[in-house]
Amino acid sequence: MQVQKPEWQYVDDHFEEFVSELREAVKRPSIAAQNIGMDECAQYFKGLMEKHGIEARIIPTAGYPVVYGEVKGKDPNKTVLFYDHYDVQPPDPLDEWESDPFAGEVRDGKMYGRGVSDNKGNACARIQAVGALLKLRGELPVNVKFLIEGEEEIGSTHLSDFIRDNKDLLKADYGVWESGYMSPDGRPGMYLGVKGILYVELEAQGPSRDMHSGSAATVPNPAWRLVWALSTIKNEKEEILIPGFYDAVLSPTEREMELIRASMESREGEGGGNAASAPRRQYGVHSPLADLSPLDLRIRSLFGPTANICGFRSGYLGEGQKTVLPAKALVKMDFRLVPEQDPDDIYQKLRKHLDKNGFDDVKTRIITVDYPVKTSADHPVVKAAEEAALAVYGKPASIAPTQGGSGPMHPFKEYLNLPMVAFGVGYWGSGNHGPNENIRLEDYRKGIKMAMEFIDRL
Amino acid sequence: MQVQKPEWQYVDDHFEEFVSELREAVKRPSIAAQNIGMDECAQYFKGLMEKHGIEARIIPTAGYPVVYGEVKGKDPNKTVLFYDHYDVQPPDPLDEWESDPFAGEVRDGKMYGRGVSDNKGNACARIQAVGALLKLRGELPVNVKFLIEGEEEIGSTHLSDFIRDNKDLLKADYGVWESGYMSPDGRPGMYLGVKGILYVELEAQGPSRDMHSGSAATVPNPAWRLVWALSTIKNEKEEILIPGFYDAVLSPTEREMELIRASMESREGEGGGNAASAPRRQYGVHSPLADLSPLDLRIRSLFGPTANICGFRSGYLGEGQKTVLPAKALVKMDFRLVPEQDPDDIYQKLRKHLDKNGFDDVKTRIITVDYPVKTSADHPVVKAAEEAALAVYGKPASIAPTQGGSGPMHPFKEYLNLPMVAFGVGYWGSGNHGPNENIRLEDYRKGIKMAMEFIDRL
Repeated sequence: MQVQKPEWQYVDDHFEEFVSELREAVKRPSIAAQNIGMDECAQYFKGLMEKHGIEARIIPTAGYPVVYGEVKGKDPNKTVLFYDHYDVQPPDPLDEWESDPFAGEVRDGKMYGRGVSDNKGNACARIQAVGALLKLRGELPVNVKFLIEGEEEIGSTHLSDFIRDNKDLLKADYGVWESGYMSPDGRPGMYLGVKGILYVELEAQGPSRDMHSGSAATVPNPAWRLVWALSTIKNEKEEILIPGFYDAVLSPTEREMELIRASMESREGEGGGNAASAPRRQYGVHSPLADLSPLDLRIRSLFGPTANICGFRSGYLGEGQKTVLPAKALVKMDFRLVPEQDPDDIYQKLRKHLDKNGFDDVKTRIITVDYPVKTSADHPVVKAAEEAALAVYGKPASIAPTQGGSGPMHPFKEYLNLPMVAFGVGYWGSGNHGPNENIRLEDYRKGIKMAMEFIDRL
Repeated sequence: MQVQKPEWQYVDDHFEEFVSELREAVKRPSIAAQNIGMDECAQYFKGLMEKHGIEARIIPTAGYPVVYGEVKGKDPNKTVLFYDHYDVQPPDPLDEWESDPFAGEVRDGKMYGRGVSDNKGNACARIQAVGALLKLRGELPVNVKFLIEGEEEIGSTHLSDFIRDNKDLLKADYGVWESGYMSPDGRPGMYLGVKGILYVELEAQGPSRDMHSGSAATVPNPAWRLVWALSTIKNEKEEILIPGFYDAVLSPTEREMELIRASMESREGEGGGNAASAPRRQYGVHSPLADLSPLDLRIRSLFGPTANICGFRSGYLGEGQKTVLPAKALVKMDFRLVPEQDPDDIYQKLRKHLDKNGFDDVKTRIITVDYPVKTSADHPVVKAAEEAALAVYGKPASIAPTQGGSGPMHPFKEYLNLPMVAFGVGYWGSGNHGPNENIRLEDYRKGIKMAMEFIDRL
């Protein structure tokens, strides 16, 4: 019989208790969008930290409070900051859940519940890892800080201000991002960055009310205006035509390309999030994207900025026939941006492009901006995570230099200059934001061990 | 004191009774879309015809019945057919009416009610004109037929079949279309045709559900597909780019141009339907239409086919931000067609154009077709109407060779080869289909006289 490390043995011995703590977190709905149970859940995390020997407090913000925790380590010059969030998405649609989303029911080795993967499982595992190390050794090798916010699912509205106003408190050398997902082949997935975003509305105004379409020979149509404006923004080859749009885009480095190639095999198996094969398997739309190799798609997915139509609304939206000339046309677009694109600069370029092409009548409005951020794949924090993963999972991590989505990573870079690596307890089937969100308990167990090994390697 | 013609005197003497008959018609809601009061209203018109000496019957169709009426005239070789409809639009929005839409209330010389202009006022005036002539003279100069259908407001679904199956019954030499409107300067407006229509849906399919827009770098977007497809259909110069689209379009004749020029002055006054100045006065959209002269706009309005976007629906349609890549994009378009464009031919050309430009993945579906129809401005039926108008109104008619809208005129041409002229009791402020639909009683009085004079001049 293999003798386990005492740290791992401790986790196994206390696993039932750890699972129970996680269930208690899930049982406290903390739906930021609906202001349900927020304070109670923040209090729970404060209490959990204290139970595990972490000095904790709740810090008010202009929105929902932050739960902050801290433990001094042996080496006073090294600090790691864990970023998580205690708020969750609304559980709708409720009738698609197979069990109460706020019960934390365990079936077939999985715990089901809203937020169990996104992000309470990660927050609990990291707290429990620190607690276990403290119990076993009485101290940690490095300083550990926790920042658990309550507004991630509603856009992290006050996070940037909070970090700016608490630079000294949050000062750290290494950062761990909130989530990571197991690949179908059993390799732990990590990522090192997020895309930026520029979310804009484009609006063209027509007559004051929808008119009878008999007047179309003589009255300009705002839906046509937006069609023509949009067709100058991106062409059928998927080329974004705004002058200067690609100027700041960085090419993948050699090391990043190595990571991508190494990660490709882990994306061939069963299950979700597989952007590589999506265009092929899904539908018959003609697109140059359908002709790209899985590797090229993966590179686009991680390093390519986008110009996406999220919504187009104009005129009659119902069934059957209504002969109208619309009063208004509204388009919602998101541009996903990559380092070193600046969303404000891209917005200026978009506006200038529209004006130059005669579309100064098309109004534009910024809804959201966020900046792209990426940690260098050569940074020691990545190495520590890689080595810890190999030790715990017995397989090399699948590391994406960044990801297709966005997230509030930028203030960590801007105010703390913090390198970030993302890993966690979710898997390809976790179904964040959807019904029956779940994690596998074995991933949870390893996730606790992973956090311990990571801390030990900094 | 001027001595009136006995026919006009008769109308004046009985005008109160005629108004009362019209009110009774309005009091019978006949909302085809909701199947409210249809039979009762058809019976009322049958009874009204009989009261006025017209042989009447109700003829079933596969939908709502037709009310048919007939009077033999002195000249058995000349027949005029009046086309009207007894169904009305729903009265919504009810709270915008200043009086009960089914009361026929008179205020300030106007009768208010759903259908009073569209089309019960016209049907009653024509029946009463025939009744008056019969009372005074015992016979009519020509045969008169009435076709009053019950499905005009729901697309005249069974009218074409009815006409095809009753060619002999409906055989006629002259036709009078259901409606006409007084111009702001007091000239009676007439028109001689309608545009055709091709109403189509264009659909592009995306992923099976809306996806997270983080996948936009690698997954084709159906909204972009439709934007690109549409931008090949019409350009910013308002040129329709489907090859062959304009091939069958007839230029205005000399006589038609004369009519247009003569009608321009009657369109400069107060009030509605003034397509000529609409683009200028309304909003700041850039369009070549804004630079056209009133005459050029009028020519486009009558003789120009259109490619209009009635609706564009894709992705997130709500307020604020949702970052999705849409599952589907749907566009509704209507093409208004002019003689001799054939809607089926135009559909084939559209389909071929899309295929040729690589958009065979964009599905198209016909919702409605109707053919453009136009009566020659040189036809004697137009002359009879012009002369009658001059006699009754003391001003020349304002005659549009056709109009911007469409209507079910085609089966009259196809099966009966019937020349059609449109005149009636409405005015520029009648507000058909809207709240507070109304006619001016003086227009109603003259409308009865107009029908009498017209019959006398055939």
